[in-house]
Amino acid sequence: MAKTVDLNCDLGESFGNYKCGMDEKIIPYITSANVACGFHASDPLIMQETVAVAKANHVRVGAHPGFQDLVGFGRRNIALPPNEITAIIEYQIGALNAFCTESRTPLQHVKPHGALYNMAAKDERIADAICCGIAAVNRELILLAPAGSKLIQAAKRYGLASAREIFADRAYEEDGSLVSRKKPGALITDEEAAVRRVVQMIRHGTVAAVTGKEIEMEGDSICVHGDSPGALKLVRSIRDGLIAEGIRIAPLEQVVSENGGHILKCS
Amino acid sequence: MAKTVDLNCDLGESFGNYKCGMDEKIIPYITSANVACGFHASDPLIMQETVAVAKANHVRVGAHPGFQDLVGFGRRNIALPPNEITAIIEYQIGALNAFCTESRTPLQHVKPHGALYNMAAKDERIADAICCGIAAVNRELILLAPAGSKLIQAAKRYGLASAREIFADRAYEEDGSLVSRKKPGALITDEEAAVRRVVQMIRHGTVAAVTGKEIEMEGDSICVHGDSPGALKLVRSIRDGLIAEGIRIAPLEQVVSENGGHILKCS
Amino acid sequence: MAKTVDLNCDLGESFGNYKCGMDEKIIPYITSANVACGFHASDPLIMQETVAVAKANHVRVGAHPGFQDLVGFGRRNIALPPNEITAIIEYQIGALNAFCTESRTPLQHVKPHGALYNMAAKDERIADAICCGIAAVNRELILLAPAGSKLIQAAKRYGLASAREIFADRAYEEDGSLVSRKKPGALITDEEAAVRRVVQMIRHGTVAAVTGKEIEMEGDSICVHGDSPGALKLVRSIRDGLIAEGIRIAPLEQVVSENGGHILKCS
Amino acid sequence: MAKTVDLNCDLGESFGNYKCGMDEKIIPYITSANVACGFHASDPLIMQETVAVAKANHVRVGAHPGFQDLVGFGRRNIALPPNEITAIIEYQIGALNAFCTESRTPLQHVKPHGALYNMAAKDERIADAICCGIAAVNRELILLAPAGSKLIQAAKRYGLASAREIFADRAYEEDGSLVSRKKPGALITDEEAAVRRVVQMIRHGTVAAVTGKEIEMEGDSICVHGDSPGALKLVRSIRDGLIAEGIRIAPLEQVVSENGGHILKCS
Repeated sequence: MAKTVDLNCDLGESFGNYKCGMDEKIIPYITSANVACGFHASDPLIMQETVAVAKANHVRVGAHPGFQDLVGFGRRNIALPPNEITAIIEYQIGALNAFCTESRTPLQHVKPHGALYNMAAKDERIADAICCGIAAVNRELILLAPAGSKLIQAAKRYGLASAREIFADRAYEEDGSLVSRKKPGALITDEEAAVRRVVQMIRHGTVAAVTGKEIEMEGDSICVHGDSPGALKLVRSIRDGLIAEGIRIAPLEQVVSENGGHILKCS
Repeated sequence: MAKTVDLNCDLGESFGNYKCGMDEKIIPYITSANVACGFHASDPLIMQETVAVAKANHVRVGAHPGFQDLVGFGRRNIALPPNEITAIIEYQIGALNAFCTESRTPLQHVKPHGALYNMAAKDERIADAICCGIAAVNRELILLAPAGSKLIQAAKRYGLASAREIFADRAYEEDGSLVSRKKPGALITDEEAAVRRVVQMIRHGTVAAVTGKEIEMEGDSICVHGDSPGALKLVRSIRDGLIAEGIRIAPLEQVVSENGGHILKCS
Repeated sequence: MAKTVDLNCDLGESFGNYKCGMDEKIIPYITSANVACGFHASDPLIMQETVAVAKANHVRVGAHPGFQDLVGFGRRNIALPPNEITAIIEYQIGALNAFCTESRTPLQHVKPHGALYNMAAKDERIADAICCGIAAVNRELILLAPAGSKLIQAAKRYGLASAREIFADRAYEEDGSLVSRKKPGALITDEEAAVRRVVQMIRHGTVAAVTGKEIEMEGDSICVHGDSPGALKLVRSIRDGLIAEGIRIAPLEQVVSENGGHILKCS
Repeated sequence: MAKTVDLNCDLGESFGNYKCGMDEKIIPYITSANVACGFHASDPLIMQETVAVAKANHVRVGAHPGFQDLVGFGRRNIALPPNEITAIIEYQIGALNAFCTESRTPLQHVKPHGALYNMAAKDERIADAICCGIAAVNRELILLAPAGSKLIQAAKRYGLASAREIFADRAYEEDGSLVSRKKPGALITDEEAAVRRVVQMIRHGTVAAVTGKEIEMEGDSICVHGDSPGALKLVRSIRDGLIAEGIRIAPLEQVVSENGGHILKCS
């Protein structure tokens, strides 16, 4: 079982005059940052600053590309043709990469945002379009995506390393998908339970589904949030819980390098 | 005097469903393409296609960043603070560079667009902000800017190679600046005269100002247009005129490498 | 059977520097204009000018609201919640109405655009959201929508007059829906056949479905296009064909007032 | 001297997922709301809700149109031609008016936002362009603008009622313009002093300029803010101070109707 895990968080989601999140508070606790790229959130100045702050905090940077839907924060499904999805992925990765070059921190990974992430998890054509865009720009980038999703499968087809994202505060269906937020029990609100679940997923590769049945659930990176005092407290508890169990917390690149087994490069 | 010159043209200025220009008609006649980056014109799909077409035609690719003003086509002055200008330059260069990576054609140069180009030509702070952004992303990029402008001076401060752009169909003031389009005589409408002027600028480094006085005007790249049958005809005449005079037409990188003298790297 | 029919066309779809359509060529032949409202196309200056030109040509003005998707021209499905659809409908109608007030021509109708039109035709919740927005702003506005669609039904629920749009150059399925453009036979390319079909729909309320079966198809307004010389020629032929059959061509408001029967106001 | 004054505040400046301001906290203390119209801030849903909340709190609604510059919050100068300024003013007023119609609260006034407000205060052509747009849509709308500005003069030329805005927490130059925020002493940070100044302006039509010299400064509406606990406290103190002096607080329309003298309609 895994002995190293990454903690990732979405950062840089402010926009112009609008503030969003508490980036400077969460950043000391994470190892990888998913930085918005100006389509669903963020702007060039905020991207520049976010990358610089991540670098200064020894947090690795990933691109967090989304649909071009500022007013909807990238959370609404948009029926884009696959070739356009590929192009917006490349555009956003390239834009963020400019700030990584400036800050001399290599881009580490790509995690699609919001509706794009959810649609791609289930739709092979969209998953392929995303991986095609990543591979066209930089084959060294790691795809961060839900365990067992179409995205993880697509990454293999495109020869990309992938990392499996797991959630501390979300319940799972028996098939390993997240319980919809519209259903009861979707959120794990008991902090201690959340920590226990994370430790179990990392230590043993299993978790109790919402039905009670134990299912397989391995992960390389835990998605955390820093947008409220409660969220920050949960992150600290998760860190403490992992460390107490002897699990090392390290950036995605190291985790993928160590865990490794799930990366099946194209032949 | 110069024996080699580049022909540059703004390409990829369509947007979504909207077509603009006749890119495929002009591309066989030019050596460097300034590709819009999605702020004042273009979108990810069009950028991807434009870079691929340029590559296929052995035309070198440059970024053509502008203000974020689609409805105004980047032609209106916007009072951005210098640090934001730097950030939007980096963002746009990075975005275009993703498609250059995909097409395996290195980005060659940067030519600011419209109001940003005109403001920077006269305003040292804006010129510095642009060069700072270019240098932060890639110090090998050539800045294409008006001869004698603040932009050319700023490039030297930032250690960037620069290339001087001249115009076949525009009149010059005695100080080397372009005659405003609002004034009579701003445009050179006689095709033969335009060709003669171009040849004189490249061959002898001089041109007749609108007052009649001969002024110094050296150039590395001639700005041409492909947005009308008349414009295309002028481009062909310019090419024929240059070749008849024994002047070689080659991409900006080669011209800068050969002409060289005006590039004073920072010490 | 109907003796009067409206000819409607989408106008004002240019945007900033980008030109789209041949508005000034088609306008003499139509009686109602669907004017884009700045979300999927158009901008305030173009809206102002389009309304003024329509007024000058005695063409009645309708709002043509769409999704906020300039790069996609409003043609991609976006999963907006119904209350947001209502709000964007109100916003766009209000914006266009300002120019109608300025030009002293009352707003006549609303025809949703592109993906919004197609989604609403089949989805009762979206159809209701659109009609709710129209009714909130002005209960005198006529909804222009496909015959037999959910939109026509929703208009009745909201007490709005509705008008049934028919197509000269598109084939119909047996259920009265348009044959998808992806299927063979979707377009009626024979100009004489198109004119005959239009006359039959207006005169007799029937048309041959793509299967050959004759189906009921009544209409109040014929959708025409003015974006190519061929399209303009078809419009003139349709006009001639209608007039030759003694059918009067008049703005939607008059057609609805005369045909009337299909308008069932809420009790 | 005036016995009635309006308290105005900018509201509805959130955007999609981004929250801005504490609208629900400030609204009980004001009489007129300047509602953002989707160009520099806000979106259709937020406009709809803001108008409804204003109506429910017996607060009158005004349009707060700005430049189309979300990322800059409308605070950067943009060199738009006057006819385009007129068009964006009409568009934004019309859009907001749709929600006023829905909420059955008539639109009361227009206060330009940010850079547009500041530019128009000093530039007659821009001031005229704004008033031209207001007059084209609705001649009953009151223009809210700085006392002594080009905007107030332009309103007279276009036959619009105007109201003079004054500031409790800003210092004035001897010519009646605001002291630039970049200069020392620009902000009045002493709450008691701010209240005294407001009372003096309303009661006596004078105020001490930053130089100490007493200048004339009459006002019809006091600009207040609700974006911090300190701002809210100041608003309450201003209200208390005004009431203690026997000054009535009422919406702009009543103030203009009572004060009246400065409204010189075009002959």
